[in-house]
Amino acid sequence: MTDAITLAVTAGEPAGIGPELCLQLAASDRDVGLVVVASEALLRARATQLGLTVTLRPWQPGQPAATGAGELSVLDVAGLASDQPGQLDTGNSQYVLDTLTLAANGCLDGTFDGMVTAPVHKGVINEAGIVFSGHTEFLQALCGVERVVMMLATDELRVALVTTHLPLKDVSAAITPARLSQVSRILDQDLRKFFGLARPRILVAGLNPHAGEGGHLGREELEVIEPTLAQLRSEGLELIGPLPADTLFTPHWLDQADAALAMYHDQGLPVLKFQGFGRAVNITLGLPIVRTSVDHGTALDLAGTGRADVGSLKTAVRVGERMARSLRAHRATASSPSSGEPT
Amino acid sequence: MTDAITLAVTAGEPAGIGPELCLQLAASDRDVGLVVVASEALLRARATQLGLTVTLRPWQPGQPAATGAGELSVLDVAGLASDQPGQLDTGNSQYVLDTLTLAANGCLDGTFDGMVTAPVHKGVINEAGIVFSGHTEFLQALCGVERVVMMLATDELRVALVTTHLPLKDVSAAITPARLSQVSRILDQDLRKFFGLARPRILVAGLNPHAGEGGHLGREELEVIEPTLAQLRSEGLELIGPLPADTLFTPHWLDQADAALAMYHDQGLPVLKFQGFGRAVNITLGLPIVRTSVDHGTALDLAGTGRADVGSLKTAVRVGERMARSLRAHRATASSPSSGEPT
Repeated sequence: MTDAITLAVTAGEPAGIGPELCLQLAASDRDVGLVVVASEALLRARATQLGLTVTLRPWQPGQPAATGAGELSVLDVAGLASDQPGQLDTGNSQYVLDTLTLAANGCLDGTFDGMVTAPVHKGVINEAGIVFSGHTEFLQALCGVERVVMMLATDELRVALVTTHLPLKDVSAAITPARLSQVSRILDQDLRKFFGLARPRILVAGLNPHAGEGGHLGREELEVIEPTLAQLRSEGLELIGPLPADTLFTPHWLDQADAALAMYHDQGLPVLKFQGFGRAVNITLGLPIVRTSVDHGTALDLAGTGRADVGSLKTAVRVGERMARSLRAHRATASSPSSGEPT
Repeated sequence: MTDAITLAVTAGEPAGIGPELCLQLAASDRDVGLVVVASEALLRARATQLGLTVTLRPWQPGQPAATGAGELSVLDVAGLASDQPGQLDTGNSQYVLDTLTLAANGCLDGTFDGMVTAPVHKGVINEAGIVFSGHTEFLQALCGVERVVMMLATDELRVALVTTHLPLKDVSAAITPARLSQVSRILDQDLRKFFGLARPRILVAGLNPHAGEGGHLGREELEVIEPTLAQLRSEGLELIGPLPADTLFTPHWLDQADAALAMYHDQGLPVLKFQGFGRAVNITLGLPIVRTSVDHGTALDLAGTGRADVGSLKTAVRVGERMARSLRAHRATASSPSSGEPT
């Protein structure tokens, strides 16, 4: 089918559970074309170890990807140094980054409709002498964008963050009008582009307890957040808040909104992970490409045991497919002479 | 019955929903004796307004409290200036504080087994020229204790806080070994005393995202939290962590613990309120008395409409009763010659 969606799936750290999770994606028929970007030898070895019968089909750009049960298309990536479950090897680090580069470039040139990433191990990549602070920053640099936004989502809840991996004591200073505006605009635009929402409604948390309680518990709401939200509303964004974080995540507010914007990591993600444990997807907004990810790590201790749960990766694939379809519809509308609502 | 539990219930702000919630407690028979500490005239007026048939029985210390459907014991408090729903009046502020003082002193002298508080309005009390930062601090001063701990609980989850109503930027500096030790010890002791747990297991969150990720995302875990927890463990406390907050609130950890200790307000309470919306109880630990509270405010706009939900107050009564029973058992054990396990 010409309208089939094809997603690249990077298998991540070879010593982790990523390769075997990718193999598990072949367990059933699927509508979406999946191309695993990894060492074919690694996948073959892991399948043998686990007694999985999966036919690996070498894949070339332009070909349709395998969608049948028991088969999996593979874009073979060279450079693997070793393939032992649980055994990190700095010799594999460049290979891991090559899988990301191949997948992302394939998204940028239209070969893929999006990419889904299994976990990498930051530590071993840095030990190899390569500065690497995560998929998100790597893809941001590769795509040449100034700002990306981390959003975690389940079927019921979407939570985006204004700041991500910052020490708590540095969060207040990082909540600037410029950053808050940029993040809010990206969230608004990408909820339209990737999720087909015509006018996203976004709940915005305050920074302080009780959203500052009129200045008694902090002044950032009065001095930074409220004026910035007012400006953004005047541009047409539908922003509700700043709300106390412990009020925001209750049915009265959640039922009337499409996403929540938390000011920092531990204000938003504990609720999201509690609500959707094992079913949460990490989405990078602000990129020109679709990128989703599992919400777990490499789980070196589980690698090779076959006990790792493929749930989060399957959800990441499903969400990636939906985002890719929405992006296509969005582009079709944007390029059509009559710029009305999507049909 | 000599072993009946008697709880004082303060009706809180006269213009809010507190008085009508107290009246709703009379709707059915109950095992626990409840004494509403409030202006009897106010309760009578609110009952008339709402068409509620409740027999108010004047109560004196030493008497059993009414427990039948349709009747409610009242400890009448003088000094009410006005009783209009929705209309704050600084003339009522001293009256409101008097209800708290009466209830707390009754707990201290053994007249009551505990107190349950309906919401007060901090703003109007301060406008009356009385410095008042909340029930918790008022009771702390009245009971003469150095530190109290705020814990919110539902039937499934208990979350205590190391810091409470602080601007976010001041949280890091407030996480000192002294405070963390004091709060942890109070939480441990009071889970034994008020909840009958022989050896409470407490999950402790880190301060920073990913609990600092080995120092990459903040050093408070390495420099303050971990050494303090090690010291407390050597004293016999069962503390697990510091854990990343977005990992802590997942079944793997929650299933093996009795409570979570969050470092600050918006790290712990959004999950608690999400999980137990409308069923959460606010508990003050560290006091020599039992004190529970609703988890909502005065809801001035709902007062007098009869639409306010009594669920949280009922839960606060139920939890207060359970805590009072546990405290009795604890005292009986502590004062018995053989200091074995509770029988």
